[in-house]
Amino acid sequence: MTYCAAIRLKTGIVFASDTRTNAGIDHISTFKKLFTFGQQGHCFFTIQTAGNLATSQAVISLINNDINEDNERSIYRQNTLFDIANLIGEHATNVAKESERRAVHTGNNFTSSFLIGGQIAGEAPELFLVYGDGNCLHATRDTPFLQIGESKYGKPILDRVINYDNTIDKAIHALLVSFDATIRSNLSVGYPIDLLVYQNDSLAQPTGVRLDTDSVYLNQVRQTWSDGLLGLLDNLDHPPSDYYT
Amino acid sequence: MTYCAAIRLKTGIVFASDTRTNAGIDHISTFKKLFTFGQQGHCFFTIQTAGNLATSQAVISLINNDINEDNERSIYRQNTLFDIANLIGEHATNVAKESERRAVHTGNNFTSSFLIGGQIAGEAPELFLVYGDGNCLHATRDTPFLQIGESKYGKPILDRVINYDNTIDKAIHALLVSFDATIRSNLSVGYPIDLLVYQNDSLAQPTGVRLDTDSVYLNQVRQTWSDGLLGLLDNLDHPPSDYYT
Repeated sequence: MTYCAAIRLKTGIVFASDTRTNAGIDHISTFKKLFTFGQQGHCFFTIQTAGNLATSQAVISLINNDINEDNERSIYRQNTLFDIANLIGEHATNVAKESERRAVHTGNNFTSSFLIGGQIAGEAPELFLVYGDGNCLHATRDTPFLQIGESKYGKPILDRVINYDNTIDKAIHALLVSFDATIRSNLSVGYPIDLLVYQNDSLAQPTGVRLDTDSVYLNQVRQTWSDGLLGLLDNLDHPPSDYYT
Repeated sequence: MTYCAAIRLKTGIVFASDTRTNAGIDHISTFKKLFTFGQQGHCFFTIQTAGNLATSQAVISLINNDINEDNERSIYRQNTLFDIANLIGEHATNVAKESERRAVHTGNNFTSSFLIGGQIAGEAPELFLVYGDGNCLHATRDTPFLQIGESKYGKPILDRVINYDNTIDKAIHALLVSFDATIRSNLSVGYPIDLLVYQNDSLAQPTGVRLDTDSVYLNQVRQTWSDGLLGLLDNLDHPPSDYYT
């Protein structure tokens, strides 16, 4: 499985992806699921992937081919993020359908889903989720974050904390905590985490950081959070006596 | 959907169930999913249900019929919780198979899952999860809590907090917080919550409480928890500068 999330704030977009993939529980590997594309001063995009790894990788290869050929499907030649989201949806469904056609065994799920966020010069920054069926939706002020993959464990903290006016700091904190909760509860999501911050209108490709279990700051956040939660729970008042009747 | 959880501690068992059921998103009702059975001084059981509501209700009816007929399948005549868990599994799979046989449309899921916890005089208290296929497992010291239904949103806090030696107070707090997180993130789980505490060796049927959004204590826990989480997040150190590169 996989867990990817991204938050579109007033001042920028924060992206985070885990790196664990598994085919069954005895075939676990580390694969990057966060890919950056961009032309300094013109555009910047991050694509995150979840689902069938072969399909995800094929789509990234097709996107790179289009860029290298500088053909009309190149993501650098699109006018809007919406166009790019649709291109990804088309690549992804073509790959999945072809895989299904060739498959020996039926019932495998060849679909992948994607988050695509970034900015094209002259346009507002945007963030889209492309579903396995190729359709897409975008983050709004009301719902500024999107998730793909194993999203349920880490959703409550984002639901509680995230709004469009948050600082990037707060979004980073919420994502680290959201990923930590997911990784504790589900073996199929694992460290390291790829984390990347895009500042609005920078139109530059950030490097981002890869956070593993030896990251001092990540461990400090995890420990502070864990101690804080336990402390909060310890300090709650005793339940009323009728709870025990 | 549904969310039910139960925690078997050293000193007792705490049970919690939501009460929302839905068939599609426009047919939402309140149904009890936590049922108690017992004979003062002899035995006490709580059964919680998730899944197909018709199957769940049919199983509870069959259990009541067996009790009323005082036949050999009566849960009051079983020697162990394991026997009762198997009885429930047999009832549940019989009902689901019969529903499938009669169904006009294929593809409906007629299965239900159950938590059954309690104590028989002379036996240790136990807690079982009965799967939709009728097989079961029990809570252990290592994994003292079990969940059925929409369990992922509320699992991280239980994973982080719960251990066999916890006080009943702490288990109640963790369950309230776990349910609050689930209800905030998923429309198909809703208040009120049925909460029930069984104290080991009491062999008495507790009344329990039904907690709705007007419950003073529940609201106090929700508010304290929510404020506390936001405060914790606000107090985390700033991310290192390379997170922004």
